[in-house]
Formats: sequence, structure tokens, C-alpha cells
Amino acid sequence: MRAAVLLEPGRIEMQERPLPAPEPGDVLVRVTTVGVCGSDAHYYREGRIGEFVVTDPIVLGHEASGVVVAVGDGVPQSRIGERVSIEPQRPDPLTEETRRGDYNLCPHMRFFATPPVDGALCEYVTIGAAFAHPVPDTVSDDAAALCEPLSVGIAAVRKARVTAGSRVLVTGAGPVGIVVAQVARAFGAVEVVVTDLDERRRETALSFGASAALDPRVDDPSALRVDAYVDASGAPSAVDSGIRAVRPGGTVVLVGSGAETMTLPVQWVQNRELILTGVFRYANTWPTALALLGAGRVDLDSMVTARFPLDKTADALESDRTPGNIKAVVDVTDPAGKD
Amino acid sequence: MRAAVLLEPGRIEMQERPLPAPEPGDVLVRVTTVGVCGSDAHYYREGRIGEFVVTDPIVLGHEASGVVVAVGDGVPQSRIGERVSIEPQRPDPLTEETRRGDYNLCPHMRFFATPPVDGALCEYVTIGAAFAHPVPDTVSDDAAALCEPLSVGIAAVRKARVTAGSRVLVTGAGPVGIVVAQVARAFGAVEVVVTDLDERRRETALSFGASAALDPRVDDPSALRVDAYVDASGAPSAVDSGIRAVRPGGTVVLVGSGAETMTLPVQWVQNRELILTGVFRYANTWPTALALLGAGRVDLDSMVTARFPLDKTADALESDRTPGNIKAVVDVTDPAGKD
Amino acid sequence: MRAAVLLEPGRIEMQERPLPAPEPGDVLVRVTTVGVCGSDAHYYREGRIGEFVVTDPIVLGHEASGVVVAVGDGVPQSRIGERVSIEPQRPDPLTEETRRGDYNLCPHMRFFATPPVDGALCEYVTIGAAFAHPVPDTVSDDAAALCEPLSVGIAAVRKARVTAGSRVLVTGAGPVGIVVAQVARAFGAVEVVVTDLDERRRETALSFGASAALDPRVDDPSALRVDAYVDASGAPSAVDSGIRAVRPGGTVVLVGSGAETMTLPVQWVQNRELILTGVFRYANTWPTALALLGAGRVDLDSMVTARFPLDKTADALESDRTPGNIKAVVDVTDPAGKD
Amino acid sequence: MRAAVLLEPGRIEMQERPLPAPEPGDVLVRVTTVGVCGSDAHYYREGRIGEFVVTDPIVLGHEASGVVVAVGDGVPQSRIGERVSIEPQRPDPLTEETRRGDYNLCPHMRFFATPPVDGALCEYVTIGAAFAHPVPDTVSDDAAALCEPLSVGIAAVRKARVTAGSRVLVTGAGPVGIVVAQVARAFGAVEVVVTDLDERRRETALSFGASAALDPRVDDPSALRVDAYVDASGAPSAVDSGIRAVRPGGTVVLVGSGAETMTLPVQWVQNRELILTGVFRYANTWPTALALLGAGRVDLDSMVTARFPLDKTADALESDRTPGNIKAVVDVTDPAGKD
Repeated sequence: MRAAVLLEPGRIEMQERPLPAPEPGDVLVRVTTVGVCGSDAHYYREGRIGEFVVTDPIVLGHEASGVVVAVGDGVPQSRIGERVSIEPQRPDPLTEETRRGDYNLCPHMRFFATPPVDGALCEYVTIGAAFAHPVPDTVSDDAAALCEPLSVGIAAVRKARVTAGSRVLVTGAGPVGIVVAQVARAFGAVEVVVTDLDERRRETALSFGASAALDPRVDDPSALRVDAYVDASGAPSAVDSGIRAVRPGGTVVLVGSGAETMTLPVQWVQNRELILTGVFRYANTWPTALALLGAGRVDLDSMVTARFPLDKTADALESDRTPGNIKAVVDVTDPAGKD
Repeated sequence: MRAAVLLEPGRIEMQERPLPAPEPGDVLVRVTTVGVCGSDAHYYREGRIGEFVVTDPIVLGHEASGVVVAVGDGVPQSRIGERVSIEPQRPDPLTEETRRGDYNLCPHMRFFATPPVDGALCEYVTIGAAFAHPVPDTVSDDAAALCEPLSVGIAAVRKARVTAGSRVLVTGAGPVGIVVAQVARAFGAVEVVVTDLDERRRETALSFGASAALDPRVDDPSALRVDAYVDASGAPSAVDSGIRAVRPGGTVVLVGSGAETMTLPVQWVQNRELILTGVFRYANTWPTALALLGAGRVDLDSMVTARFPLDKTADALESDRTPGNIKAVVDVTDPAGKD
Repeated sequence: MRAAVLLEPGRIEMQERPLPAPEPGDVLVRVTTVGVCGSDAHYYREGRIGEFVVTDPIVLGHEASGVVVAVGDGVPQSRIGERVSIEPQRPDPLTEETRRGDYNLCPHMRFFATPPVDGALCEYVTIGAAFAHPVPDTVSDDAAALCEPLSVGIAAVRKARVTAGSRVLVTGAGPVGIVVAQVARAFGAVEVVVTDLDERRRETALSFGASAALDPRVDDPSALRVDAYVDASGAPSAVDSGIRAVRPGGTVVLVGSGAETMTLPVQWVQNRELILTGVFRYANTWPTALALLGAGRVDLDSMVTARFPLDKTADALESDRTPGNIKAVVDVTDPAGKD
Repeated sequence: MRAAVLLEPGRIEMQERPLPAPEPGDVLVRVTTVGVCGSDAHYYREGRIGEFVVTDPIVLGHEASGVVVAVGDGVPQSRIGERVSIEPQRPDPLTEETRRGDYNLCPHMRFFATPPVDGALCEYVTIGAAFAHPVPDTVSDDAAALCEPLSVGIAAVRKARVTAGSRVLVTGAGPVGIVVAQVARAFGAVEVVVTDLDERRRETALSFGASAALDPRVDDPSALRVDAYVDASGAPSAVDSGIRAVRPGGTVVLVGSGAETMTLPVQWVQNRELILTGVFRYANTWPTALALLGAGRVDLDSMVTARFPLDKTADALESDRTPGNIKAVVDVTDPAGKD
């Protein structure tokens, strides 16, 4: 099979690799679509994200859909032919974290495209049968792949305790911010204010259902009064003013990755008893993601602004620098892009 | 002022009564619209609901909107002229229940139209200033009055832990069931199945957003698998089959009033660790109700199927027997109905 | 190995059986102590519990401690020699329930001594490595076995939301009631009232830390006002009066097994918004059980009132009819009881 | 009556003031004991705490017990003579925060000894009847006064989600840290590690039930693995290492007041989904405080290390600099200290 392999920062090579065989409990999936995430681009350019360092060649990509083509021992043959959205993680079922339902926090996790585990920018991958989620016909291959960023949004909005009637602030109108805004509305938020420095991104946020999109240099978000605040920027100044927008007893969820440490208005958090937390991937989100997609409560298809064949993976990884880009996808069904 | 007074079961008399004066902390409200609730009709016909017995003449009505026309000590004059939705309760701020936020459970509660406290089927009422909720211009007087049943639905759906992606069963397609179905969708439910024996009511449920409306004699609800079940019928057979529709760890909320005791499938509840509870009015629901109304997430106006002048209150109380009736309202601005 | 096999109601036969081999991920445990549970006695006498029917010979016993003597593939050799408390369940890691942490509700559960799965009244058993919990030296073999009923108590007290300062009612002073009372205190309850018809059992409850032990024929529990009520009797009259003892917004947890249905004071539950639920085994309780035991917060050793060799399993199963019996254990290390 | 009045930083003057009259709903309390809090000492020395500035003469003291000697309108005469513990706050019952039970977050709060509201270092104070909590005979006047810091501990331990079996880290072994450690045990914690730079304070922590007391310069707290971490020091280095001690999904509660901003290991918080919050006073804690005291689960009396007459209030405010001091109290029953 063909695979896009990152050899070193900035250098992707197309390789022929042996087809993986499904282990007991796994399915083998022929990959259809892979979304490109900011973390993929970061590995591609920098060769590391914090403590995770690319030392050996690695296949990137963790937002993937496909079709089951073979099953390992213990998995029913009937799954062959199923269109699936891949939840790209393999937690250890025996750890304390997994047993209590927080499997994303499992210390033995093997996660797609996180060194040394290969990802999905290739023609075939294996995954635990329960992590290949069947997709209804009404959901496109693109949307099935983008269930992964949708899951990040669901995890964030759950932790933000957004519910019917909530007012929500989202800082950062990149793909994560757009997803969070959409998910917040699906959870019943009546007001979703998004901030971004970039005008085009603000317009995008509005087109995906934000009630308002502010330029924080003009309109200070800390003048708002929201129930929940989700940062999707990683920018310290955004986080500082976002925290000051939250009503007493409200929530702050930090999704954006930034520096290892950040100076926070701690006294403000204390005096208002804000609840501040972060999101590390997701657990138990795919059923919700597929339910929302199936019911048309979120729109992932319109987020796809560029499409590349597998052989142009490097271009896809660069495409976040194209103005107007929201989300690029790699179409793996057509490796050389000849169709 | 004119008031519709229930003298004894089945006998309403229009009386002239002195205008009430607002106590410190209260507002005086000129009533605009009063919705008729099943409990009003029950008091009217039976003279009692369970332990609450009408012994002295009483004014019914607890779903009311109006305009602030005077304020008591300590309330800013600026409130005069405000259109308001009335939260018809006066909890004691000092009880344990009120202090921890469950003011609906306050043992010293004084509640509109619950003996011996008069209700809103009259031209003027007083209420605590914080319980007269300002209404945006986009919300009609009818909808402002019907924030009260909407609040019942919000209380039920919160306790049912409905969230984005939930599948919900509602038994009973009367006004409460219709509101619960609408609220469940506003909380993000993707599937809301309503059951009722009456075909017209099932059609109504569908028109208000139910995903399916079942005749329980034909389609057994216990064959469903839902996350949350809300009873709005009070019928033991509905409750029994509804409980059996709930997935392990799911919720059961009993809103409908029925007999004092009920035979429940307790072993089923135990073996699946279902969480069963009830709703007694509501607390902290008006902000959510007004937010959902303001954002157009629920439609109360279309639920109004009949309108009566104050002098025809008895007809309004009888109107629940009219086929196709969902919710009758009394228009208090035109007592004699001459307009 | 020797095994006590239930052939038909009332008939236990000692059999020689082949030693089981640990599957991948399992450990092989030489059993030390097995506690006798009311459900074992029920299977022994009746051959069934509700929908679970003994059709083939079965080994009973699910409260067990032992020593790891061999490990399956993937389990470190270092575990051999470990003293362990057995959590007697094998959930399927892939079901929705297990994934969200409620593995006790897993529909594919295989549970010790529940037809057709054999239990622990034999010399050797296998169990998933993560379900054989290492036991500190300070915890006896008896207490390690009785972590199982302790876990039932922990599950119940968690669901009852007992916390520091809580007032708790427990109906039924059998072994489960005694454990619940102890656990409630360990969770910070300051008042734990236990009821039982039997005077000796009431005395036992007091000796294990109940603040009061009432004869419900003399002192009506419904005159109490508690935050949480746990039934450990399965008796409808106890449940009815227990529910009426709970303060508004409080909790009711039904642990005792009784009839399939029960007539409950539903209006009382509704008007006070009580939260009623049940307990089906337990999940994620062993760490808490071992922490409480290790810290001396609960006393399981004193609950052991009778001890039998494995060959006298039938006598052990009958011993719940001995006056003063709380908990019988079977000492498997001495099958013939010659020591 | 006599009152100890802070005129300017460092200058307390004893004044004769008119006896306050209880407003409707209030009680008049003859003060018995007042505990001295770090915040009192801070106002005394600096004349301000953050945004709260002493501009006019003020009476300090907010940890108080006393006896009801008169009642305002609407309060039963039967309360006269009651020994009470004062919850020193007057929330507005009408704000959103108060209505949902978070009255400590009420924006209109009037709190004892917070400018411009006078506190309890005087012979008589008035307070809302429901905020004067009756004290059982077994609880001393000192302990009744110290229900206030106990309440801070209860609020912190609740937010830290401490429960039976929890492992807890507390940084700072001053009076708040000591109370938090005691409360954590009362909530069922089996391990409570306290850190402090001062050896004497570490010994004190051990004597009040800490399982271990560490010098953070010798034993790095971040090597621990705890479920919950409570800071009672306000020291950035303590907070940084404390956060790193928390298991994935665990909690961080910041009680100690320090600088307005703090540099936190945000990526650590995100990657482990820690839940970080603060405590601002308390709500609904007195019933728990009195229950724990009444049951002997916490020991406040032994925390009193110095006692002063009212006329020596300045000495009491200075006493936190005396080595070995934990908590000083002012005995108001003997203003001149002649007994």
C-alpha cells in the first residue's frame, strides 16, 4: 500500500508498505478521507509537539474515514463493507482511567500519528473494532473523517457545561473554534460569540452560526458576561480576557495548545469560583458526533476548503497557510490524484 | 379590579376586589394574559388536588404575563412599564431548600392558585420583584404567560439529563408533553418519540417537532432504547412501559400527576441502575425559558388554541374538553370580551 | 482441583476438576477464602434468582480472596505470589457501558456464580489480571474476600450521595445493611439509623457503628428526616416508610432484592423531587474498598461469624439460618477441614 | 457597647458605640468569642486586601459566636437565649447567584469586616436570623466561632471532590491548611499529605491528623499522586508543584490568597484534564460544620493557641507572628480582661 511518510521535518516521502494485518479484535480499514489537523502540520514543520518528538519516520493523520475490508479474530465478518469513522486511539482497557470511563487519559494510550504510532495518511490502517464507528449513509466520507475534530468540540463543550440557554465565548476562529461554536449551538447555547484577529476567519465563524464575531483589538471580550468560555487559540492574551468574561461560577475550557505555562488571573478565578479545565482529546464522543451529524445539527462538509490526493500530502500539510483555508482533506481513494 | 373567583366546585363568580398594594420588594402587575392549566381545571371541577383543598373562595390561574404598574419599597421605579412574565411563587429565602437553590422545595412556599393563595385570573397581582421577569419585545404576551408551563418542561428535561445527541421518550401529548418534546430538542435531543392514545394529539406532537408519535396500543414503547424518559401522562401503564424503554444508566422523570402510589418495575430499575425522579414545579428556569423563547428555539404561540375574556373564565376552564384544544388563554386586558 | 458443585437445588457435590489455565490477560488464583452471600444460598435452595436459572451444574461463590499462582500471556510474571482480592466480573471492554465507565452494566458481562459462569467455591479460578486486586499485608484473607460485599456498600453509598455530615437511614441489618452502615460512616455520615425486625441484628448494627437501631414496629422510620435512604431488606413496607423519611431533594437507593415490581409512594417522590435508583453490583469500587480497609475505616473481620472447610460448603450455605450469623466464610486452603 | 475600631493601618481604638437594633428578620447577638483571621491581620497592617480598601474606620472580625439577646420583626421570640455561630454574610436573596444556591457569589453581598461593613470585634452585632446558627451544648464558644474557618475548609474540600478513599495534598499548614486537612479526613480521605516550610507547623499538621507532613525543599510534592490538591499557602512554587502531584482527572482548589496573577503549568492541566477552581468564602456549609463538630469529627478547640480580651484586640491581631501560634481568639465577654 502507499503511505505518506514523514522522514524529517519538512520532508514527506511516498512509500510502498506492506498491508497491515488486523490483530484479534481489530478491523482493517481501507482509508477514504483524512483531514489535516494543525498538529499534523506542526509535526511536519517542527518534528515535535512538546514532549512528543518524531525520531523515526512516521505516518501522520488522525482524522480518518474508510471502509472495513477485513476483520481480526473475534470480530464478526458482517462488519466487512461497513463505512466507518475512525476514533484514532487504542487505550489499555485495564488502567484505572479507562475503567472509570476516562480512556483518553489512559497512560498506556497508543494514538494515531503520535510518535511512535503511525497515523492514517496511507491506504490501509487497523483499529479496534469498537473504535471504527459505523457511519449512516447520509453522512459523507469527509464528514466521517471530521468526526475527529468534532469530537474535540464535543469534549470541550461538555466540559464547559454548555446547555440550553447558555451564553458562550470562543476565542479563536480556526477549525477548532468553528467546531466548538457549532457544537455549542447544538447543545442549546443561544449566544455564541467568537473572537479572532483575522477578519476572514471572523466571517467564517458567522457563516457557521456564531451570533457575533469580534475583533478583540476593537471589542474587548472581557466586557461580555458568559456562562462558559472555550479557548481555541492558545494565545495568552485571549485567555486572560476570556477568563474575565465569565460570570461567577462559570467555566473556562482551554483547548488551544500554547506554551507549557501561562500567567492567569488566578485571583479572578478564585473570587468568582470559576471552574477551569482543559481538553485532552476525547472519550465517548463518537455516538454524540454521529447523532449530531445524522440530525443535521452540525455542518462539517462546508468546512472542507481544499482537497488533495495522497501523493500531495505535503501540499495538504502546507495548505493551512492559504488564506481562507479552514480544513484541508486528503482523498486517499485516488492516491495519485488522476481522477 | 375584576377577579374570577372560584366559590365552590364548578362555580366561578366575577367579583370586584380592591386593588392589591405592593409590599416592600414586590411589584404590582396589571395582568395581560393567563394560560389555563390542567390543575386549574382540576380545582374548578373537584375543589382539590391531593392534599390541597379549596375551602375558601380562591382566584385560580398561575400562568401569567403582564405589565408592571407600581413598585413596593426597595424596588426601582424604573421597573414601572416593564412587560413581565410572572414566576408565580414566593419561596421563603431563609429555608435550607431555598438557600441551596432548590427554592421550589421550600416548605414555606406560597404559590399562586394553590389554596389559600390567590392566583392571576384577575386584573392585578403582586409578586416579588425578582419573580417578575422582564420580557423582550420579540416575545408575545401569550408566550410570556406560557413561560410557566415551559418552565415545567425545562425542569423536567434538566432532571432527565437530556443533552446533545440524546434519544428521549415522552408519554402523553398534552400541553406538558408538547412542551417537554420542544424543550428536549432545544437541549440537543436528536430523537424525541411521543406517545398518546389520541390521534389528534399525536399529530400535534409531530407538528411541534417530535421525531415520531406512537399509539402505544400499536407500537410498544418498551421496544425503544432511549437515554431519557419523561412521563407527562400520569398513566401507570405508560410509566411501566416507558421505564422499560430506558437504556442502562438512563433517567426516568415523572411529571404527570396520577395516583398517590404506583406499582413500578423496581427490579428493572435496580438491574439497570436507572435514575428515577419527579418534578415539583421549577426553580431557576425563567432565564432559560426566556433565552430559548428569545432565540426562537421553542414555539409557545402556536400552542394557543383558544382565547377567552376574563368574564368567560369558566368557559376557559372547560375548554380542555374541546377536541383539538392544546392551551386556552384568558385575555385579561379585555375583561368583558367586547373588543 | 476440588470444587463444590451445585447439581440441583439443595444438592452440592464435591468434584475433582481439571485446573483451569489462565487465558491471555488472566491470572490463575489459588483461592484462600470465599464468603457466602445470600444469593449463593438462594441459588442453592431455589435454583434460580429471577431471570437467572441454574440449568447445569454450577460452582457458587463470588466473594473470594487468594494468591496468584500463574499468569496468562501479557501479564507480568512478577504478579505470581501476590495476595489478591477478586473482583468477580469480566465485562466486555468494547460495549458502550464499559467504555463510559459503567462496566457493571455491560450487557455481555460474565459474572462469577451467575449461570452459566462458575464461581469461586473451588481451589483455583482465573480472572482478568486487573480484576485481581493486590491486597496489603495488613488486610486479612477474610477481609480481602469480603471486599466484594464491601463494594456493594460503596456502590450504594456513592449513589446515595452520602457525604460529610449526612444523615442516613438503612433498612435491614443483614450483612449488606451492616456494610452500608459502615461505609456511610466512612463517607462522613454523622447519623446512621438502621432498622430491622430482629433484635439481635439491631444489636449487631449498633456494634458496627450505627447511631441508632430501630424496630420499625415500634419506631416509624418515616418520622425521621434523612438525606439518604438505602434499603437492604427488599421489603415493600420498609421501602415505603423509608422513602417517606427522606428530605426534599434527597436520595433513595434500593439494594435489597425483592419482587419484580413494588408499589411506591410516587407522588411523595415527585413532590419532594427525591432521586431513586438501584444498585447492580459495582464498578470502580475496589480501590476505595482497599483504601478504606487499609486505613481501618471499616471492619470486615468482625463480620465473620462462621468458618467452614470447602468440603462443608453445603453447611456454609445453610448457615444463614443460624441465629446470630452475619457472614460465613469457606476456608479453601483446608478443603477437608482437618487442620 | 465597646468596639475595637481600626482607624488606620496599625491603629486600633476602643470606642463606645450605640447598641445596634435588629432590623426585621435579624437577630441581635451578644458576641462571645471572635477568632482572628489572617485577613483581619492583613487589613490591620496594610489597610487593604486587593480591591477592598479601608477608607473609613472599621470594626474587624468575622469568626464569631454569641448569644441571641433580641430579635427583629418576624423572628420568633423563642430564639432569645440561643447560643449561635454567626455566618457573617448578608447575601441579597434576589440575585441570580443567590437564587441558584451560590449565595457566596452574590454581587450585592455585605460581608462582616469587609469595607465598608463592620465586623464582630465588639460586644453586639446583628445578623439575619437564618445566618445565626444554633449551636449544640457540646460545642464550645470557641468552636462555634471557628465554624467560620471550618466552613472555608468544607467549601474547599467539597470543590476538591474529596470522598472516601481519596488521597489529598494540602500545601500550607497554617490555620486554613490544618482545617482543610481535618475536613478532608472527615470526608473520608485516607491519605492527607501536608507541606510547609516551617517545622513547627508540620508537627502541628501531624497532630491534627495529617498522614504525612513534608518539607517541600526536601521532599518534592510533585512526586506524589493524589486525587485532590488544595493550596492553603498562596505561594506560586507550592501551587506549581502541587498541580503536578494530581492524577489525571483530579482536582486543584486554590484557597490561599496570593498575587492577582500566577504562572501556572497550563499544559499539564490540559493534558491531564485537571479541574482547577478556587474558593470564595462558602455557602450552605454551616449545617455540615455543626454536624461534624457535634459528631467529634473535627477538633477546633485544640487550634486555639492564644486568648485576648477585647481591649487587647491589637495584640490579638499581632499574635500570628508568635511562633507556635495557630489561632488566636478574642474573648468578648470580658472586654477588659480583668477576670
